[in-house]
Amino acid sequence: MKVVKKIKALRELIKAARRRDKTIGFVPTMGALHEGHISLIERCVKGSDFVVVSIFVNPTQFGPKEDLAKYPRPIRKDLQICKKHGVDIVFAPDVKEMYQTGGITWVNVDKLSEHLCGRFRPGHFRGVATVCAKLFNIVAPNIACFGQKDAQQAVVIKRMVADLNFPLKIVVCPTVRAADGLALSSRNQYLSPQQRKDATRIYHSLQAARKMIKAGVTNPKTITAQMRKIVSRAESLTAIDYISIVEDSTLQDLHRITGSVLIAVAARFGSTRLIDNVIVDAPKQ
Amino acid sequence: MKVVKKIKALRELIKAARRRDKTIGFVPTMGALHEGHISLIERCVKGSDFVVVSIFVNPTQFGPKEDLAKYPRPIRKDLQICKKHGVDIVFAPDVKEMYQTGGITWVNVDKLSEHLCGRFRPGHFRGVATVCAKLFNIVAPNIACFGQKDAQQAVVIKRMVADLNFPLKIVVCPTVRAADGLALSSRNQYLSPQQRKDATRIYHSLQAARKMIKAGVTNPKTITAQMRKIVSRAESLTAIDYISIVEDSTLQDLHRITGSVLIAVAARFGSTRLIDNVIVDAPKQ
Repeated sequence: MKVVKKIKALRELIKAARRRDKTIGFVPTMGALHEGHISLIERCVKGSDFVVVSIFVNPTQFGPKEDLAKYPRPIRKDLQICKKHGVDIVFAPDVKEMYQTGGITWVNVDKLSEHLCGRFRPGHFRGVATVCAKLFNIVAPNIACFGQKDAQQAVVIKRMVADLNFPLKIVVCPTVRAADGLALSSRNQYLSPQQRKDATRIYHSLQAARKMIKAGVTNPKTITAQMRKIVSRAESLTAIDYISIVEDSTLQDLHRITGSVLIAVAARFGSTRLIDNVIVDAPKQ
Repeated sequence: MKVVKKIKALRELIKAARRRDKTIGFVPTMGALHEGHISLIERCVKGSDFVVVSIFVNPTQFGPKEDLAKYPRPIRKDLQICKKHGVDIVFAPDVKEMYQTGGITWVNVDKLSEHLCGRFRPGHFRGVATVCAKLFNIVAPNIACFGQKDAQQAVVIKRMVADLNFPLKIVVCPTVRAADGLALSSRNQYLSPQQRKDATRIYHSLQAARKMIKAGVTNPKTITAQMRKIVSRAESLTAIDYISIVEDSTLQDLHRITGSVLIAVAARFGSTRLIDNVIVDAPKQ
């Protein structure tokens, strides 16, 4: 496994792999790798000949009051994980390397970026779309793997790839959960023991919602009210950003549950913001 | 020469050329090809093994009151020109093929898009940057040739390519002029004989500006006032959108002329809007 910090060096290694007729798989990450990332790497290893993982805590997707400075950066452990799971190249640029031209170009995926997390993190998806466009142009992968845990990110990136004709396939992989249901996230390590326990309520609320839909409930308000009750009981809860049931590709709010729906939650425990979601197929009426 | 209308077919032809180790050159156009376009094609033929010309009147770069509907589309003549000058593929998609996903993703090159023409054509450079991003992803060229006549477009696209790490080189080719100095443009054919005659005043004003700078004038207002006089004498002039002297890479207004400056004019004759520019190196003081 090679670790490269420079775009030019990365391009040369990838070019050489292409010349050997390798297909390129790509997993963009912000590091602090956990089993969720590992599942993406494994999917990528399975689906391509040559796997590139990027580790880059992208400043342009953090708001001014967010956790950019304290975001975990356990680079040595991350590299061990990548090596163990068959990654060919880790691309770990610094901020200057990625934004050497001083970035005034932005990729905006309108509409999709305004819902859900977009309302609470202005500029976030603009930062995500822009850095992914950059990384796709640098790596030129055949496939790129993203996690379903960041559902809106996956929808935004898929749409960007389609709209801008990026020649690659986005693969969205299932959310990986702890034994008690909590979706794995690099931010879970911020949680105190009490917060960690309380955070499972997000998962329980999603499970309750799934059951209600499968039992035939079609009014989203009935379901989100019940979910809100479940999450609100958590002692360390500081805010519920949203509990939403939306159409799974447009992210539009639904007035009646039908077809395939995305149920998404964002809630804060102490100062830590967590998100989770499930996709549920409503029973045919 | 092949003419293709579908993205998928184009990608396959380009992939085959790449497999034969050809470098790809690209000239994006809106058709109505003239000697200016031909100079871009010739530059591309010289600098690459396999040349793709796109002919696509991109609706997203036209304002609601602009000339999208009447923009000339002499496709048969355009194809003859391409064939004659050694083009390998003409890519001539329809609007549906280019915007099949209903385009909600936009590439914005902030700041650079706001000056000069950006003030008079809101959304224009967003449309240009977005369609070029799409075309670059579809064609994946090694080089792409643009004309200096559209100076701001060249600056915007160069910056987008740098900021988003597109793996290609932008080549900007000199403006081609008629014998009387008028910059060639597909829009010149809208002009009446009187307007056509009057339009040369843009060129004369640019030449006058060049002379003044070379003679040591450093106050841009002295120069633009003189230019305005020259252009204003045209009988068929309906508006001067701007006469500006700006820094040639940032497009910022200059308060004192020094270094390499871009002198740019946009003026309307009847309902036809024409632009032209020169880059002048100020003498060292």
